[in-house]
Amino acid sequence: MKISLAPKVIKGDVRATAQLIRRIDDGDRDVFDDLAVLYKHSGRAHIVGFTGSPGVGKSTLVDRVVTKYREDGKTVGILAIDPTSPFTGGAILGDRIRMQKHFLDEGVFIRSMATRGKFGGLTRSTADAMVVLDAMGKDVIVIETVGVGQDEVDIANSAHTTVLVTIPGMGDDIQAIKAGLMEIGDIFVVNKADREGAGKTIRELNFMLHMSSERYVASGWVPPVIDTIAPTNQGIDGLYETINRHREHLFQCCRDELIKKEETRVRNQLMDLLKEGLMETALQRIGGIEGLNGCVKEIVNREKDPYGVTFDLLKKLLGG
Amino acid sequence: MKISLAPKVIKGDVRATAQLIRRIDDGDRDVFDDLAVLYKHSGRAHIVGFTGSPGVGKSTLVDRVVTKYREDGKTVGILAIDPTSPFTGGAILGDRIRMQKHFLDEGVFIRSMATRGKFGGLTRSTADAMVVLDAMGKDVIVIETVGVGQDEVDIANSAHTTVLVTIPGMGDDIQAIKAGLMEIGDIFVVNKADREGAGKTIRELNFMLHMSSERYVASGWVPPVIDTIAPTNQGIDGLYETINRHREHLFQCCRDELIKKEETRVRNQLMDLLKEGLMETALQRIGGIEGLNGCVKEIVNREKDPYGVTFDLLKKLLGG
Repeated sequence: MKISLAPKVIKGDVRATAQLIRRIDDGDRDVFDDLAVLYKHSGRAHIVGFTGSPGVGKSTLVDRVVTKYREDGKTVGILAIDPTSPFTGGAILGDRIRMQKHFLDEGVFIRSMATRGKFGGLTRSTADAMVVLDAMGKDVIVIETVGVGQDEVDIANSAHTTVLVTIPGMGDDIQAIKAGLMEIGDIFVVNKADREGAGKTIRELNFMLHMSSERYVASGWVPPVIDTIAPTNQGIDGLYETINRHREHLFQCCRDELIKKEETRVRNQLMDLLKEGLMETALQRIGGIEGLNGCVKEIVNREKDPYGVTFDLLKKLLGG
Repeated sequence: MKISLAPKVIKGDVRATAQLIRRIDDGDRDVFDDLAVLYKHSGRAHIVGFTGSPGVGKSTLVDRVVTKYREDGKTVGILAIDPTSPFTGGAILGDRIRMQKHFLDEGVFIRSMATRGKFGGLTRSTADAMVVLDAMGKDVIVIETVGVGQDEVDIANSAHTTVLVTIPGMGDDIQAIKAGLMEIGDIFVVNKADREGAGKTIRELNFMLHMSSERYVASGWVPPVIDTIAPTNQGIDGLYETINRHREHLFQCCRDELIKKEETRVRNQLMDLLKEGLMETALQRIGGIEGLNGCVKEIVNREKDPYGVTFDLLKKLLGG
């Protein structure tokens, strides 16, 4: 057992937390003993996901909502998965300067997750980082993701409350929402609502929600559509109240749904951990990267085929 | 060994091919013996990927380029991974009617891949379907994907020639291209080039390519930016010639790059097959879905933690 940072993290030590999350993001496998300890202390934070295409203003929305949490005395952890987010350093200077007030606030802990490990590491490392922030004692964990791709959907799906953000005139976003994002949204936000076509976008979303209203009978929560203009704070109070109302809904009125969400998250996390562990062992047994490259060359030359190689390797690994 | 369809597929039998691809898409594991036989007959097709956000007109572009191939007497297999593509049945009626000429053409085989298996199946099943179409004797395999998310990037990356499609005014697309899609594009297309802002988008792309020109020194191929208006065939001849020029570049001038691309594809395919095989065995040993759900409940209740459960399970599976 290599537990070194967990006790400090539980006490809220910022340096230890930063160090552990960095090691998670680096793919360091020695973190698991610490995480096992921290896991028992997790499960208290409200996890809120903000998901949407680059350019819809997610970061400014997050910034404004986090300000509301701080006014209420709540502590917040932010994990940015969006490569264009100012939190990850990917945005223009102005955005980053705007965020500085939170960087200087001890009640807010901001980190970006970047590394896609060899074997689907981003979902796994984000789940691990959530455990750390939760065990550290943060009241709320905000995850910011680009709303596209299976990884991002999985990450968004691991939140208790998922806010899907779009802007007027993003017909492609509406397509994407139709094509699969719809069911993960608990709250829909039309940001930059002073732009032309805002009314139309809001109507389209409401219509789509109306068309699938039978989906919401069981939970009793019909996702509301909220219009905001983040830079001038318009609609932020309403959004903040709605997020808290959804939290109440989950934690008090509808425990079944909460438990279902928790189970989904744990199931995904367990599968990701297993996958990574199995694949690392498989890679070792095949002779590391060198052994793998040898196999690949034989297959490219059609001396072998990928199906036979897999069959042999599975037999070698698992016996029987 | 359960080889049943492979000999027919090699002879170009459409029914057997359709049946095998359906079984692949269904996640039927009995297909592997057939695939092992077919693999030895694959490796001849030129694989062309079309990638871009929903709404950029990928399907119409594919339709026009396929028409050019047919005029040249080349046979084509199309795999649609984009859920909004008319090939997958996801688009409006007009689009689907437009595609019918290819549906009725024996020289074109169109299938959509839909199933995301339990363990990252889409990338794997698409790779398997490519082996089938290749062994069936198709000269060209076209893969249509939505250009977002790791799965799609992996699939696009498995093509010999990747065409990245955008339209004027999609600032978010440009962001996405900057954020990671850039390096997988061999040809950039600005479709709907009669729209306002086309010039600006083309200039932006050319500027981005210029900024990363050192990347292209090794291969000697600098991705060109082509403007098209697919419905009126504008730019299609140029695009078609450029695709063929890239094929020549790979297959004749720059074998090293071709081999690198083949190795990347095989490596990904092998990893996906292994992952799936290992995870299915792991799930069996844990007691199937029921056993998994039991573990998940214990973790949700904090009786156990996911890290310890994974550790124990890995030990049980792999010994040591």
